Amino acid sequence: MRFARFVRPGGIAYGIVEGSDVEEISSTPFLPFERTGVVHPLASLRLLAPCLPSKIVAVGLNYLDHVAERRTEPPEVPMFFFKPSTAVIGPGDAVIRPPACRQLDYEGELAVVIGAVAHGVREDRWREVVLGCTCGIDATARDLQALDSQWGRAKGFDTSAPLGPWIESAVDPGDLRLVTRLNGEVRQDARTSAMIFDVGALVAFVTSYVTMLPGDVILTGTPAGIGSMRAGDRVEVEIEGIGVLAVGVRDGVAAFPAGA
Amino acid sequence: MRFARFVRPGGIAYGIVEGSDVEEISSTPFLPFERTGVVHPLASLRLLAPCLPSKIVAVGLNYLDHVAERRTEPPEVPMFFFKPSTAVIGPGDAVIRPPACRQLDYEGELAVVIGAVAHGVREDRWREVVLGCTCGIDATARDLQALDSQWGRAKGFDTSAPLGPWIESAVDPGDLRLVTRLNGEVRQDARTSAMIFDVGALVAFVTSYVTMLPGDVILTGTPAGIGSMRAGDRVEVEIEGIGVLAVGVRDGVAAFPAGA
Repeated sequence: MRFARFVRPGGIAYGIVEGSDVEEISSTPFLPFERTGVVHPLASLRLLAPCLPSKIVAVGLNYLDHVAERRTEPPEVPMFFFKPSTAVIGPGDAVIRPPACRQLDYEGELAVVIGAVAHGVREDRWREVVLGCTCGIDATARDLQALDSQWGRAKGFDTSAPLGPWIESAVDPGDLRLVTRLNGEVRQDARTSAMIFDVGALVAFVTSYVTMLPGDVILTGTPAGIGSMRAGDRVEVEIEGIGVLAVGVRDGVAAFPAGA
Repeated sequence: MRFARFVRPGGIAYGIVEGSDVEEISSTPFLPFERTGVVHPLASLRLLAPCLPSKIVAVGLNYLDHVAERRTEPPEVPMFFFKPSTAVIGPGDAVIRPPACRQLDYEGELAVVIGAVAHGVREDRWREVVLGCTCGIDATARDLQALDSQWGRAKGFDTSAPLGPWIESAVDPGDLRLVTRLNGEVRQDARTSAMIFDVGALVAFVTSYVTMLPGDVILTGTPAGIGSMRAGDRVEVEIEGIGVLAVGVRDGVAAFPAGA
């Protein structure tokens, strides 16, 4: 099933996407729910990020071709960092270039949405704690990333975590085509089977250290083809069997400190 | 005022600590509240972490003597990373050594508790968005930190962020003595005036990139004297004008993957 989160008269709701329609559900996909019978044309809805993660665990250097383009070595175990809830934006929103950044990059990624409190999950039981998958972008201030040993500002700034368009629960994430387009031109084109650590390995490793909560997200790393985006650009991440996440790009404030 | 969060019959509440008593308040220190007249002996209460951060922004390398002991260079601008909400524990809880870690270190730190939605805050107006200060420990798997380029598992594991004992709103954080004791022996002894970037600079820098929410915490970095702790140890962080945070240490599961 495809779970979308959206705005409609009366507030925010979750629904199930079927073709060009969305049927509202009575609660959220993280709880028991019923179909309500209320149906909206998909095209009439403003979609939001399909979940509200308390945190995003972002995995670095998980595709060999990306490891090569970054001129570094592959990690021996999954390497991860956190992006905060305040970084999340949804389909049609814009990534805003943060202060002092002169090179703002896209990184298209498969995003795994956790569906249950998850701690110490065995690798062969990852499906029990994953609700489904969506598309994600790990927006990166590439120049600031090079200046800072830790990537808090380079990858954690407001708007740095686009997610969407919906959570697909029926897809197996093991071997899906992932394409990132910049203004319609293909820039990344890979298969998730090329991950160094697959979804099961990531869920097991991450949850051996960090308890994951319903709605939390694992961004599984980006393949080769990273590059810059500028104000006015349109970035799309399309993952086979899931859908297309499209966002814009805007310039933010030019200097630090903001407001000075 | 000193705001504590605690368990008492009927559930969790916030209160104001005055001497050896705690008077309950009607809501939380992040909202308008009234004193309820219900008073508990402080010694009768189990204190919890005094806030529920959606995220912790942890600042690295913010004391020159610590920069020296880490044999690195001071950053030109504040360097930060995120610790997740799931890392938080309270007074009297235990830091649990995560999988594969053989060197678990304490880092005593001043913790700044944000009191309002904060974005683009001017350096000279930081007081408007800070509720107060508490004591914190940035528990660190030092050996894993050396293995990983990003410190997600080394500093983000469950129990890696002890906070407490309460939020002191009346203290100026600019020049406070900070002492860390391991089993009663002083290991860190510094003044917050030795920070490379002071609280105002940190609030301005962080909020120029990341929107901070009420209850969010900035861990302001640790001074020299870091060292290891073992199962059964007791670690105390005492900050002048605030109080003492004491936690224990326990061994966790021995190997990755957990449960295998």
